[in-house]
Amino acid sequence: MQNHPVNSLSMDFLTEFLINLEKLENDRSCRGIILTSGVPKIFSAGLDIMEMCGKSAEHYAEFWRAVQEMWLRLYQSNMVTIAAINGSSPAGGCLMAMSCDYRIMAENPKYSIGLNETRLGIVAPFWFKDTMVNTIGNRATESSLELGLSYSSPEAHKIGLVDQLVPEEKLQSTAAAVMSQWLAIPDHARQITKSMMRKPTVDRLLAHREADIQNFVSFISKDSIQKSLQMYMEMLKQKRG
Amino acid sequence: MQNHPVNSLSMDFLTEFLINLEKLENDRSCRGIILTSGVPKIFSAGLDIMEMCGKSAEHYAEFWRAVQEMWLRLYQSNMVTIAAINGSSPAGGCLMAMSCDYRIMAENPKYSIGLNETRLGIVAPFWFKDTMVNTIGNRATESSLELGLSYSSPEAHKIGLVDQLVPEEKLQSTAAAVMSQWLAIPDHARQITKSMMRKPTVDRLLAHREADIQNFVSFISKDSIQKSLQMYMEMLKQKRG
Amino acid sequence: MQNHPVNSLSMDFLTEFLINLEKLENDRSCRGIILTSGVPKIFSAGLDIMEMCGKSAEHYAEFWRAVQEMWLRLYQSNMVTIAAINGSSPAGGCLMAMSCDYRIMAENPKYSIGLNETRLGIVAPFWFKDTMVNTIGNRATESSLELGLSYSSPEAHKIGLVDQLVPEEKLQSTAAAVMSQWLAIPDHARQITKSMMRKPTVDRLLAHREADIQNFVSFISKDSIQKSLQMYMEMLKQKRG
Repeated sequence: MQNHPVNSLSMDFLTEFLINLEKLENDRSCRGIILTSGVPKIFSAGLDIMEMCGKSAEHYAEFWRAVQEMWLRLYQSNMVTIAAINGSSPAGGCLMAMSCDYRIMAENPKYSIGLNETRLGIVAPFWFKDTMVNTIGNRATESSLELGLSYSSPEAHKIGLVDQLVPEEKLQSTAAAVMSQWLAIPDHARQITKSMMRKPTVDRLLAHREADIQNFVSFISKDSIQKSLQMYMEMLKQKRG
Repeated sequence: MQNHPVNSLSMDFLTEFLINLEKLENDRSCRGIILTSGVPKIFSAGLDIMEMCGKSAEHYAEFWRAVQEMWLRLYQSNMVTIAAINGSSPAGGCLMAMSCDYRIMAENPKYSIGLNETRLGIVAPFWFKDTMVNTIGNRATESSLELGLSYSSPEAHKIGLVDQLVPEEKLQSTAAAVMSQWLAIPDHARQITKSMMRKPTVDRLLAHREADIQNFVSFISKDSIQKSLQMYMEMLKQKRG
Repeated sequence: MQNHPVNSLSMDFLTEFLINLEKLENDRSCRGIILTSGVPKIFSAGLDIMEMCGKSAEHYAEFWRAVQEMWLRLYQSNMVTIAAINGSSPAGGCLMAMSCDYRIMAENPKYSIGLNETRLGIVAPFWFKDTMVNTIGNRATESSLELGLSYSSPEAHKIGLVDQLVPEEKLQSTAAAVMSQWLAIPDHARQITKSMMRKPTVDRLLAHREADIQNFVSFISKDSIQKSLQMYMEMLKQKRG
C-alpha cells in the first residue's frame, strides 16, 4: 500500500485496492499476499476523512459501499493473507489488519493499532466489532471499543490483536517465512475451513448491508458529526502544515 | 451499597437500588457511578435467601422480576459504571460487578468473587451465564459454573473476571481515576457502542423473561430446594449467632 | 480405551464405546468416568482411516453417524467426564478429549494434540469446530484449524486446550483427585448447568445431522480424497511395517 502521506482509505485507493485484489484472486499462480505499507511509520491511517466531510449523501453511500466491499473481499479471500504491520494502524487500518489470516507487527513502541473511533465521537459499525470479537474476544473488544483504545505493539501482542512481534528489519522476512508455512497446507482444505470460520460474520453484513449504508449516511450527515470531523481535519492540516 | 450485614439483594434493597439508579440515569449532571460497599469485607452477598425461602409463588415471581430488572438496568446503563469491589462478591454480587463497565478489586486474598450457585444445589440462570461468557469467555465460564467456583482476587484478575487489582487503600482513588478516563470519551459514541455490544444479550432475556420467571418459581418452590436453602440459612444463623 | 495399535475410532470401537457409555450412563452408582488409554504413547489416533477408504457410500454414512453419536453422547453426558491424556491425541482423539468436562495431559513434549485435519487435505466438520471454539475461543481455533496445528502438551496447556499438565506418573492419581472435586458438587445442579452451556452447540448438529452426513459422504467419496487417503495409509503401513 502506497498512498501518501498516510495510506488513507480514500475512494480512489479502495477502488484500486479492490481491482488489484480481484486480479490476484483470479490469478491461479498467486496463492497468498502480504499486506504491508510503502509509507514510513504508518500501515494505514484508516478511512479518509476527506470522503466523509462536506460531500453529498450519494457520495457517502458510494464510499461506504466501497469500504464494505474491501472488508468482504479481504476477510474471505481465498488467498493466504498476511499483514506485515510496519507502522501505526488506527481504525480502518486496524480493520484491514484484522481481516487478514495472520498479523505480524514491528516491535516499535511508537506504532499503535486499534479501533479508536469513539475518541472522534464516531462509532465502529457492527461488522468492525464482529471482526474484533472474532480476533480478541468479547470483553477485550468491549473495553477497546468503548474507550477507543490504541494499543502499542507489545500491548497489541499481549491481547492477541497481533499474532507475532518482530524487530522492524525482520518484518518482511518473517512474513515470507510465515507465508511458506501457510502455503504448505493444501489450499482446498484451508479455504473451506476459512469459509466455515468466517462466513457467519460475513453473512451478517450481507443481510444488513443496505441498512448499514443508510445508517452510516444519516450518522455522518449530522451537523454535529460534520462539525467535529471538520475540526479534526483542521487540526491535522495545522499539524502537517 | 449499605444494607447490613452483608448487602444482600433483598426485595427492599433492589427496589431502593432501582429507584436510585433511575434517578441518576435521568440526572444529566451524572455521567457515571462507582458501585462499592459501605459494609466491611463484603461487596454484596448476592440474592437474599430470606426472599427465596418459605414464601408464596407470587412473592418468588415478584422477587425474580426485580432481580431481572436490576440486571437489565445496570447492564445497559447509559452511565459509566465502575465496580470498586472492596469485599467478597459471590453469586448475585458477582453478577452486579460483571454488569458494570469496569471492575477494580481490592488485592486481598480473603476476598472472593464468583457465580457459586451450584455449590448450593441451585443453578445460575442463562442470563447470569451469558454475562459471564461475555466477560471471561465460554470455557472459563463452563468450569466456573459447573464447579461453582469462587476466585480469590488474584485468580479473578488472572482469568479476566476483574480488570484491575489495587491495594485496598487505593481502591476508591483508582476508581475515580479510571472514571475520569471513561468520562473523557464522548458520551454519545460510548453509549451507542455499549448498546451494540450488550443489546443481543439483553434481548435474549427480554424474549424469555416470563418463562425465566416461571422457571425460577417452579425450581425454588421444590421441596428439595426449600429444604437445602433452609439448612443453609440455619447454618448461617449459627455461624453469625 | 484399548484398541491396538493406536486406539483408532473404528466402527467396532465406536459401537463398543457407545454401548459401554450408555451402560454407565444408566448405572446410578456411576457418577463419573475417566477417559484414558491402555495403549502406550497414544490417547487416540482419531477416526480410523480404514473406515473411510474404499468402502461404499452406505458404509461411510453409517460410520459418520456413529462418530456423531459418540460426540453427542460424550459431550452432553450426565456423568462427570475427565480426560487423562496419556499420549498423542490428533483429530478425532482431540475431539474426544475436548468433549470431556476437564482435560489433564501428561507433561511429555512428545505427546501432541490438535485438530490437524487440513494437513491431510480434509476438513474438520462444523461441530468439531464448534467444540474447539467453546474450548479455546474463536481466534485460536481459526489458526488452529486453517493450519491443522498439533500442539505439544505445554503449548496445549498455554492456549487452554488442556486444563492441567502433570508428570506422566501422576496422571491417573491427579485425574482421581480432580474427579473427587467434581463429585463434591450436587449432580442435579451440575447437570442442568452443563446442559445450559452445551445444548446450543448440540442442537446445531441435531438440526443439520443428515446434511452433515451427506456432506461427509460426498466429500470422502471424491477420487482426489480417496487417493490421498490411500497414499497416507500406504505411508503408515510402511512406517509400521
